[in-house]
Amino acid sequence: MTCSSPGRPTSPDAPDACLPARVARSALAVDGAGRNNWKFHQWFTEYRVRDSSLVRRIPLNELAGWRFEDGTGNLVHDTGRFFSIQGLRVRTGQGPVHDWSQPIIVQPEVGILGILVKEFDGVLHCLMQAKMEPGNRNGIQLSPTVQATRSNYTGVHGGRPVPYLEYFRDPSSRQVLADVLHSEQGSWFHRKRNRNMIVEATEDVELLDGFYWLTIGQLHALLAEDDLVNMDARTVLSCLPFADPLSGDRGALHTTGHLRSWINDARVRREVDATLTGLGEVRGWHRSTDLIAHESGLFFDVMAVDVRTGSREVGGWTQPMIEARDTGIVAFLVKRVNGVLHALVQLKAEPGFVDVVELAPTVQATPQNYKVLPAEAYPPFLDEVLGAPTDTIRFDSTLSEEGGRFFHTRSRYLIVEVAPDRDLAAHDDFRWVTMRQLPQLLCHSHYVNVQARSLIACLHSLMAGTELSD
Amino acid sequence: MTCSSPGRPTSPDAPDACLPARVARSALAVDGAGRNNWKFHQWFTEYRVRDSSLVRRIPLNELAGWRFEDGTGNLVHDTGRFFSIQGLRVRTGQGPVHDWSQPIIVQPEVGILGILVKEFDGVLHCLMQAKMEPGNRNGIQLSPTVQATRSNYTGVHGGRPVPYLEYFRDPSSRQVLADVLHSEQGSWFHRKRNRNMIVEATEDVELLDGFYWLTIGQLHALLAEDDLVNMDARTVLSCLPFADPLSGDRGALHTTGHLRSWINDARVRREVDATLTGLGEVRGWHRSTDLIAHESGLFFDVMAVDVRTGSREVGGWTQPMIEARDTGIVAFLVKRVNGVLHALVQLKAEPGFVDVVELAPTVQATPQNYKVLPAEAYPPFLDEVLGAPTDTIRFDSTLSEEGGRFFHTRSRYLIVEVAPDRDLAAHDDFRWVTMRQLPQLLCHSHYVNVQARSLIACLHSLMAGTELSD
Repeated sequence: MTCSSPGRPTSPDAPDACLPARVARSALAVDGAGRNNWKFHQWFTEYRVRDSSLVRRIPLNELAGWRFEDGTGNLVHDTGRFFSIQGLRVRTGQGPVHDWSQPIIVQPEVGILGILVKEFDGVLHCLMQAKMEPGNRNGIQLSPTVQATRSNYTGVHGGRPVPYLEYFRDPSSRQVLADVLHSEQGSWFHRKRNRNMIVEATEDVELLDGFYWLTIGQLHALLAEDDLVNMDARTVLSCLPFADPLSGDRGALHTTGHLRSWINDARVRREVDATLTGLGEVRGWHRSTDLIAHESGLFFDVMAVDVRTGSREVGGWTQPMIEARDTGIVAFLVKRVNGVLHALVQLKAEPGFVDVVELAPTVQATPQNYKVLPAEAYPPFLDEVLGAPTDTIRFDSTLSEEGGRFFHTRSRYLIVEVAPDRDLAAHDDFRWVTMRQLPQLLCHSHYVNVQARSLIACLHSLMAGTELSD
Repeated sequence: MTCSSPGRPTSPDAPDACLPARVARSALAVDGAGRNNWKFHQWFTEYRVRDSSLVRRIPLNELAGWRFEDGTGNLVHDTGRFFSIQGLRVRTGQGPVHDWSQPIIVQPEVGILGILVKEFDGVLHCLMQAKMEPGNRNGIQLSPTVQATRSNYTGVHGGRPVPYLEYFRDPSSRQVLADVLHSEQGSWFHRKRNRNMIVEATEDVELLDGFYWLTIGQLHALLAEDDLVNMDARTVLSCLPFADPLSGDRGALHTTGHLRSWINDARVRREVDATLTGLGEVRGWHRSTDLIAHESGLFFDVMAVDVRTGSREVGGWTQPMIEARDTGIVAFLVKRVNGVLHALVQLKAEPGFVDVVELAPTVQATPQNYKVLPAEAYPPFLDEVLGAPTDTIRFDSTLSEEGGRFFHTRSRYLIVEVAPDRDLAAHDDFRWVTMRQLPQLLCHSHYVNVQARSLIACLHSLMAGTELSD
């Protein structure tokens, strides 16, 4: 099946052979429909200025509607909804640290992260939202059309209905460009997943206050700006069907079958036993009036905020959050082999994953944490990324983690190009994969972690669809 | 990428465009290398006659090395290994029964189900084993080359090494035709998965006693015989790459993207809370000296056997097993639309699944159980399958469930062809899928349940690869 004349398919359930070409065309469009990037920035700045929300750190004991549960010590909401902070005991047969416990966020509900797309003048545009999240250090960032927990969209908050949610509630009647349940941070969430969706509208769509249509090319340009495109937007953008799924393993160093086999092997061999416990049982962590912190002063804190805002579904609330102590490094090494770009992925076990391991970036680490960890825990390739010559750095932005749960928690996202003959010596947990193979894995659950998905969105932004759609 | 001249690829990690053609050629070969089916039967009968194993029902309290654990009442092995029988409490927001508890097998280890294949005279052959399992009503059935729990292959049993295991321990150096972690019965196992593997040998392979090379065509013919090809062999055979993965959604009523979206929707909407409890806490089940049974006398029993054999790794042992009270019905309705065969799959939630729902056959039910269940629980299409005119029944064999855990537990596997215009009225939990789409889902975890996989192997046996490889 090939794309003869790019255009929308005739029915919602017909295959769309032209989809990669339509995505690529939008990626090449660096100005949106009648509005250039300068106009976007003007609009966005206006929102940031208008934002009257106020987020304050508060001591844990000033949380309203939240309590430490008797017996378990878990931090829970009085209604039993939203999320809770519990303990996790991890035992693993591999790696330098075999046994630890930690606080972890438990949120069994699957939220929706949805981007509505629509063609204007034959070019796909994404409907993006200027959204305040309490964890954002700069208040408002650019988020998907819909970013809603189940509590949000079923009205537990008692807030206003979620705008545009109706496009994502009954996808069977619509053209769905992507729909996949993806993991979130497996070090901070227990088995959390969100439904990443991209849905196309063909009818007129009312443009509400706080929303803006942007081409994929415009979004790609914005990804290069620090703390602008939020994590939820990045993970959904990574699911855009850039590559023709039928182009398969063209030019790849390994077949996708080989990669799946390699992943299965790790799932079977690695023994990770992660069991929820009471938050009161975690060892090495101390709870004060203000926060819960690791005795080393490293890793992350559990803290609390008070939020006052006029621009959200609910006027104000308090909530616990996770605050990482330091900025993480998230990086891909990439190289061209026979003209095909490959990224170096690693198999990473995170205790909150549903299925033991997922593909992660070449480096995903917070350098400061290794001060208290055994030397053999020091991440391969970290020094290479941090010491990369400037002319090999293709991408370098500091981006925020999800602002609904993580407070001022950021990572520096890097893409570093290495020589084509760069090999990996004895690193069996690493493989080179192409940008055509990743989409084949990205349309299924449990393969690609959220940090890798963010980086894939950034990597797409460098390619402008050119290599992928040929 | 197309297959110009079918043959083996040049390196283990090279893509094999000719694989579907090679599989189809073997499916068309109804005689094996120099040996016809009559010779196979002669060989196999000899093994059945020679089999000196003796399996006896024993009361639960005669189990040696097993005990009911204090406190939980769980039935566990003294070593803490192998498997245990615990309780499961299930609460669900959907369906006619919202809340129940039951015994369930807990076996966290991932076993290997592996078929070694090799070309003789240019035709792929599968190395199959005549294997005694205590649950088999007829002792020996035909099993994969390797069928080993982790306890088996790491030597916990203290038995002999597992033959041919080395071909499956380091798949990265070999041509891997299939490698996927698949679920087992989600009603009887808690989150159990096995690694389904098909690995090709290019070197000479020593033929050990108890093993036999068969073409796929020969195996297909044997699938039509009652209680011959065991469940583990069927699930591995279902993973054979019959269809070119690049043939995609050709002729399909729904795109694979639509199917994935439909599955995700169910995963998000259906609320299934399945929590392990002590076996002593299950309500409605009674433990006697002999067995644990449901108060209705329906569903299944937990019972025990004593096994004496000279032909297995270990000479003798006792173990608990599950015995279904009645024979299940497992059936696909199939129809041809525009010349393309479609099978009707349903989304089924089984409490032991890792990811809420998987695709199941049109009918998967034990009719007797509905005597005590509400009328609205009665399975759609069950009466249609049971009353199907003889000339519409394409397949009808009674096959055994896995003989290592299930005692004399069988299902009648049926494939019934209906008219092309047969629609589904209001059954949103059902969809027609093609035999090209199923392989796309079968190479990933969490999509297709074990009963559907068995039926897919049976369905392949009707097609002899002809429609799939065109």
